[in-house]
Amino acid sequence: MYLRNAWYVATWDHEVKDRVLARRIMNEPIALFRDASGKVCALEDRCCHRGAPLSIGEVVPEGIRCGYHSLTFNGDGVCVNIPGQTQIPESARVKAYPVVVKDEFVWVWMGEAKKADTGLLLDYPYNNDKTNWPHKHAILPVKCNYRLLLDNLLDLSHLGTVHKTTIGGNPVQHATAKMRTWRTPTGVKYIRWMLDSVPPPAFVALGGFKGRIDRWQEFEYVAPATIKQYSGAVDVGNGIYERADRDGYLDIDPRKMGGVHIRLIHSITPETDGTCVYYWTSANGHMTGDPKMCELMFSQAAAAFDEDKTVVEHQQTRLVDFDESRLLDINSDGARLQMFRHLRQLIEAENGAALAAE
Amino acid sequence: MYLRNAWYVATWDHEVKDRVLARRIMNEPIALFRDASGKVCALEDRCCHRGAPLSIGEVVPEGIRCGYHSLTFNGDGVCVNIPGQTQIPESARVKAYPVVVKDEFVWVWMGEAKKADTGLLLDYPYNNDKTNWPHKHAILPVKCNYRLLLDNLLDLSHLGTVHKTTIGGNPVQHATAKMRTWRTPTGVKYIRWMLDSVPPPAFVALGGFKGRIDRWQEFEYVAPATIKQYSGAVDVGNGIYERADRDGYLDIDPRKMGGVHIRLIHSITPETDGTCVYYWTSANGHMTGDPKMCELMFSQAAAAFDEDKTVVEHQQTRLVDFDESRLLDINSDGARLQMFRHLRQLIEAENGAALAAE
Amino acid sequence: MYLRNAWYVATWDHEVKDRVLARRIMNEPIALFRDASGKVCALEDRCCHRGAPLSIGEVVPEGIRCGYHSLTFNGDGVCVNIPGQTQIPESARVKAYPVVVKDEFVWVWMGEAKKADTGLLLDYPYNNDKTNWPHKHAILPVKCNYRLLLDNLLDLSHLGTVHKTTIGGNPVQHATAKMRTWRTPTGVKYIRWMLDSVPPPAFVALGGFKGRIDRWQEFEYVAPATIKQYSGAVDVGNGIYERADRDGYLDIDPRKMGGVHIRLIHSITPETDGTCVYYWTSANGHMTGDPKMCELMFSQAAAAFDEDKTVVEHQQTRLVDFDESRLLDINSDGARLQMFRHLRQLIEAENGAALAAE
Repeated sequence: MYLRNAWYVATWDHEVKDRVLARRIMNEPIALFRDASGKVCALEDRCCHRGAPLSIGEVVPEGIRCGYHSLTFNGDGVCVNIPGQTQIPESARVKAYPVVVKDEFVWVWMGEAKKADTGLLLDYPYNNDKTNWPHKHAILPVKCNYRLLLDNLLDLSHLGTVHKTTIGGNPVQHATAKMRTWRTPTGVKYIRWMLDSVPPPAFVALGGFKGRIDRWQEFEYVAPATIKQYSGAVDVGNGIYERADRDGYLDIDPRKMGGVHIRLIHSITPETDGTCVYYWTSANGHMTGDPKMCELMFSQAAAAFDEDKTVVEHQQTRLVDFDESRLLDINSDGARLQMFRHLRQLIEAENGAALAAE
Repeated sequence: MYLRNAWYVATWDHEVKDRVLARRIMNEPIALFRDASGKVCALEDRCCHRGAPLSIGEVVPEGIRCGYHSLTFNGDGVCVNIPGQTQIPESARVKAYPVVVKDEFVWVWMGEAKKADTGLLLDYPYNNDKTNWPHKHAILPVKCNYRLLLDNLLDLSHLGTVHKTTIGGNPVQHATAKMRTWRTPTGVKYIRWMLDSVPPPAFVALGGFKGRIDRWQEFEYVAPATIKQYSGAVDVGNGIYERADRDGYLDIDPRKMGGVHIRLIHSITPETDGTCVYYWTSANGHMTGDPKMCELMFSQAAAAFDEDKTVVEHQQTRLVDFDESRLLDINSDGARLQMFRHLRQLIEAENGAALAAE
Repeated sequence: MYLRNAWYVATWDHEVKDRVLARRIMNEPIALFRDASGKVCALEDRCCHRGAPLSIGEVVPEGIRCGYHSLTFNGDGVCVNIPGQTQIPESARVKAYPVVVKDEFVWVWMGEAKKADTGLLLDYPYNNDKTNWPHKHAILPVKCNYRLLLDNLLDLSHLGTVHKTTIGGNPVQHATAKMRTWRTPTGVKYIRWMLDSVPPPAFVALGGFKGRIDRWQEFEYVAPATIKQYSGAVDVGNGIYERADRDGYLDIDPRKMGGVHIRLIHSITPETDGTCVYYWTSANGHMTGDPKMCELMFSQAAAAFDEDKTVVEHQQTRLVDFDESRLLDINSDGARLQMFRHLRQLIEAENGAALAAE
């Protein structure tokens, strides 16, 4: 069960060069390419003639030329050339997916093309601000249903366990973090404070802390599959928690206090029912003039996400065997459950609308 | 859906030595061996005692001895020895498949043994004529349904795309080749002329052409799964096309004009629904006294067939996901469609006969 | 179809150290660990919170701590800690399997816990007698249904074929061995004599025989999945066969006659329907003071069991394709068929009882 009328990340803008890229989203094979005008296009990755994948073809001025019999399709999926044939039938076409490149993401609309709504595109301006938020992108294939990674990000009580030697910290500090969660029009948001806590190894490396820290994590889930993360830590004693507003949301720029300041975006694209691709960016807001700090931030995050990958891939094997029966929600599942309800309502609304339209 | 009452290639005669060979044809495991008299035999590759594959056994003077409990079966599938037992029950036998060795092929009959008809065996005398047609055999396992390789050979418009750096040539020349296709009692035949065309790299290497060529390809599909190919090219200006008969079939020996002269036979044996084995021979009719020319011809063909393998294995992945729905036939599909109709009629006739016999 | 109310070997006692061991028995994932008191415990290998395998967690003083969100379960499967939560709901638990460590085996009860009956545990005192029976344990994963390995051990007529270069001997001698088979309350037993026979290579290496031997194999199948083996051989001419009792069972200690004297236990634990784990011990009763003899015995047995593994894995592929239809029993199948009937009766009785209880 997927939300179909929505944008999903297909890749990063800079990945689409002069060759066709093969992707699979929600079980559908998609061929991505950049046309002669520079526009990124997404076609069904299956020639309408004999079914060969278009992704083994070539990018040509007119579009993609199939690697089997050289039929050529433009970015709208219309066949514009069949060798040895002057008449091209109307039905010679493949499905074209609406594509928008924004904030360095290549977003693909997986529902009905006529419903594609650019108003639903997420804003993430930090990918366009290399001065204040130098950043780096990653693509991590993970062998689990995409929801397991979303779940992972909506319940940070795993940090002290899964990431204890990297970005974690004390499990009890994580479990007893002050946390506020609230619904937003597009999803769920929470902010989590770990006051007067011991900095985990990655934070010591990044922020050079000598003593205890006040640490926060602001996470916003935006349906169907993206999470924005603004995290940071400063030396204890700066009164940062008291200066945050009543929803726990920071209205000041804490970077002025030194410490660690991070912006991440996580977008999890369902590939098949049992696999997904984790697209993430880490941006460093601390010592922004030093490229080594951006690299350090990225490598610390990458190490942590590899730890998550190991756990969720193991978790997936059990969910395949036993589904979610006999599972039990605990206190730390609050935000995760709100996310799930939000997404389920959207899917139900979509299916209800689809039923009503029949 | 396979045609069962038909001969399929199981291997080359010279492959059957002193050990049991394991094959799978149309999902049936088959053990091939050469008996004490030198006859090639084919048995169901499963002992009737505990189901072990006979192919892990040994060839003994009496037949195959099972590698588990030493039951021995002769070439008719009859159990001739059970250690520790003097009485051998009538039911101690495994299925034996009719086998004929002809023209260096080992042909196996996959239908009812009593219907095995040697009159249906294909003739390919070139495998017996090493002086005029020095040749070499290959076995290429391919991960696709066998029909995709037959399709590949019945629509040569892919040559300019898939084989552009080997045996191909200009895609437009291929798409606009003069082509005549006609049904035969056993399948479909076509001849294709590419007059005044640029020789592809493999042809320059083989024929030593300095300028443009007249090139032809004569292909004959013989049901269920074999294709004979007689191809060649000579320097332009010899008037070879005008000297060919009205069906385009050559009644002269073009080898007297120099150039490139090839005989190939392609036989595609279904292994499972998603895999097949491609048996092919290339024979060289040009500079036949020089063994290097035969090797060169073989290696050029092998390179091209590896290119085909890559494409059809990709194509197979899409057909598994989506079958052949929403596909569109184009002009170059003529011969392929005639082949398909011929084979479908044979299968329907066989199934109709089977139903009527019940 | 498995017998559920029975003990199966999960591993060897010494394998359970300070980490969680993952096993799968009859398709159920099981986490084994040694608790703070030294007791071996077996839990369902799936956290009741989000389904992560407990086997990726850690052994802690209270039990296993899940590697995802740090829930902790004691050896009874009861959750004793949820970080950040003081109330632990009654339903926070995972299934615990009854475990008994006996004779160096870790036995797990796969049926209803309340029916776990230690009276059904097999006795194998030789694992506790390192002086008279120095021994060594092995764990061999095999890709077949567990019954194929049991079958293998109940029909030794395969020795002359599968093991001809190791522990085998002449196939005809094997097939014509004097054999008595009888039912026992817990299974089937047979003793097999090969009088005046040529020693196989492994026996020459172990026993230093110069001439022919009298050889015997006493095998006892104990349901559901264990076989005890007492085998040996002495120089011909000692009249050992005449000194054995009327059931062929030895009432004397033949070790006094020199030669080869072996005790093995084979326990085959079903993992999935198509895989199993073969736990075996070989004990050497000849030249017991020389550790090299124990090693030699073990390596000879290991070589033979690798040969069995190859054969039964091939056999499995055919049984997957064709099940057991069209198979034929022969004389040497007597003990195997009695074993199968015994096991089938137990399974039917269990299912009948289960139906009656509904």
